[in-house]
Amino acid sequence: MSIQKKVGILGGGQLGRMLLQEAPNLDIYVAVLDPDKDAPAKYLCHHFVQGSFSDFDTVYQFGQLVDLITIEIEHVNINALKKLQSEGKEVYPQPEIIELIQDKGLQKQFYQNNSILTSPFVLLNDTTDLITVSPDFFPAYQKSRKAGYDGKGVKRIEHNSIDAKEALSGPTVLEKAVNHQVEIAVITASNGEGQVISFPVIEMEFNAEANLVERVWMPSELPDSIQQKAHKVAKELTLKLGIRGLLAVEMFVTHEGEILVNEIAPRPHNSGHQTIEGCTISQFAMHWRAILGLPLITPQTTSVSCMVNVLGEKGFSGPVKYLGMHEVLEMSKVYPHLYGKKITKPFRKMGHVTLCGDSRNELKIKSSKVMQVLRVISN
Amino acid sequence: MSIQKKVGILGGGQLGRMLLQEAPNLDIYVAVLDPDKDAPAKYLCHHFVQGSFSDFDTVYQFGQLVDLITIEIEHVNINALKKLQSEGKEVYPQPEIIELIQDKGLQKQFYQNNSILTSPFVLLNDTTDLITVSPDFFPAYQKSRKAGYDGKGVKRIEHNSIDAKEALSGPTVLEKAVNHQVEIAVITASNGEGQVISFPVIEMEFNAEANLVERVWMPSELPDSIQQKAHKVAKELTLKLGIRGLLAVEMFVTHEGEILVNEIAPRPHNSGHQTIEGCTISQFAMHWRAILGLPLITPQTTSVSCMVNVLGEKGFSGPVKYLGMHEVLEMSKVYPHLYGKKITKPFRKMGHVTLCGDSRNELKIKSSKVMQVLRVISN
Repeated sequence: MSIQKKVGILGGGQLGRMLLQEAPNLDIYVAVLDPDKDAPAKYLCHHFVQGSFSDFDTVYQFGQLVDLITIEIEHVNINALKKLQSEGKEVYPQPEIIELIQDKGLQKQFYQNNSILTSPFVLLNDTTDLITVSPDFFPAYQKSRKAGYDGKGVKRIEHNSIDAKEALSGPTVLEKAVNHQVEIAVITASNGEGQVISFPVIEMEFNAEANLVERVWMPSELPDSIQQKAHKVAKELTLKLGIRGLLAVEMFVTHEGEILVNEIAPRPHNSGHQTIEGCTISQFAMHWRAILGLPLITPQTTSVSCMVNVLGEKGFSGPVKYLGMHEVLEMSKVYPHLYGKKITKPFRKMGHVTLCGDSRNELKIKSSKVMQVLRVISN
Repeated sequence: MSIQKKVGILGGGQLGRMLLQEAPNLDIYVAVLDPDKDAPAKYLCHHFVQGSFSDFDTVYQFGQLVDLITIEIEHVNINALKKLQSEGKEVYPQPEIIELIQDKGLQKQFYQNNSILTSPFVLLNDTTDLITVSPDFFPAYQKSRKAGYDGKGVKRIEHNSIDAKEALSGPTVLEKAVNHQVEIAVITASNGEGQVISFPVIEMEFNAEANLVERVWMPSELPDSIQQKAHKVAKELTLKLGIRGLLAVEMFVTHEGEILVNEIAPRPHNSGHQTIEGCTISQFAMHWRAILGLPLITPQTTSVSCMVNVLGEKGFSGPVKYLGMHEVLEMSKVYPHLYGKKITKPFRKMGHVTLCGDSRNELKIKSSKVMQVLRVISN
């Protein structure tokens, strides 16, 4: 091995899979822990352990196999990571940062305490608290404090008179809806050796029905002053957290050009996939460098790029079948990435396609064609 | 699986490794056969079989596990492949083409029979035949007809009065040395559905001592007319062979601008590695498309690129250790690819580094720095 440290990843989904496609370039030994015996990353690692990354004993024992533990999902057992760290294992991102980020309420309080602009919010212990919120706080988004992702655990609420049965139960954070012009993201990397870099600003386009990102654009076409502000916010957040690894910072840009932090993730992120083909270095290559304390370089775009999520089609659940791949492969500078999931479900992320080109207009047409022809159904 | 056919690769070296880094994007099931239990491609495949790819029974049994068999090295058991093909398995490239190419004597005869320009040659049964060759045929290169690669099985001979003990024994082909300005290569792909494409012309720069390629340049700076001729020769050869898969065609460009075919290889090739970062599609992605009968697209360069082989340093044999990787990672648009070999030997290919940039001059300086700082030694 070129890299002497053995690395373990908690989680073996598509992010782990893409980390593993990159890892051989530096000859990194990687073990993976995932509950799914058919996890997308399973066959690409040196050693796979089937088990729950939220179980203390499982994570603790998995940690014994390696020198450095990292994550591709934040819903992991923090106590096990803290114990591993106290016993001399390296854990990046650091357990206390993952712990903060895995709770959307703590995330919001962190922004507030560190003077980082974010939308107004209220913490709710349960649905009964809803009625205590001022009517003019609505419309708002109610989010489960823990374990929500990909549009799950998020509910738009129009008014506090909502039937409590319609709302999300348990501890949640209620966020005032932001009237924004666009949602953007900046991914940063920090290597614990003083280097902090940021990837180009990306713009997200949503599928309203699924509340999932449908298309991502790079570079952003926002005024340079706003982009600079976004880089500044993301880097400040990175430094204030003191994270080593990647930090994906999702932000709202208001109509007034103000930037509000929405959510953060301490790992490779869906909004950074097109860095594989559209940047001089990918978020996956950067993740390895960051957690291993290797030199970071500033990523530059190499073309205009667009990332399209490949989602399971509504109405289909079961063994996956792809239609239209032939047409996609006929298009130049179009890069499919399938995640190897055996089972499709409505709106499940089954893969993504990156398109590179000279202009956003060109890619609007091409990506629409990809979204039209590439279908994920089941037999 | 998106691709319904299971694929088996004979050979699990660095070419197999890079094929496997690409395979997940189309969700291809891949099994690998290699004699080395630590083969570079081993841990990246779905199923690994340790065994000899030159043994009939081993290859035949391995073939039973999959639907389509391909290669990353041409020194494989042809009879087993022919039997598998006759029993309904797909084999690409086709066994009879691998058989022709694995014999450097048959290769030369094929060029001659198909009016493809190549250097003058003589077939020798053994060293005793040397004396029968006219003195004005020398200097010449003597090559073992089978199993020679990477500078092994090749000997430069100045005169037919050479001591027979100095020459290569067994059946060889003696090729008149060509007084050339540059050695180039074009990799083609053919998908069996009528599509034949070719990658941009690359130029090779040799390490004289090891008779190994040291730097590869893309795109070529030769006059367009010569490059067009090179594409034409490579595509003609592809069509005349009727190969399905990749064909790497190494050619000499004489001082008069004439193109002579040197050698061919029916697989991904060392001269095509920089297509990963320097082209709109890599040779590895193209190989999968070609053998699976999927659409091919014409590759375009995305920047000037240079590939540097990372070779084991003279005087070191044993467990590998890399020096200077930190300095390499500090350079922007520089992409190391380590092959994961545990043991280094003098001039063994341990990896490669691709550099991208705006001009050859810029990359000459950067690549010299890489070659200077990156050292492969052993403890």
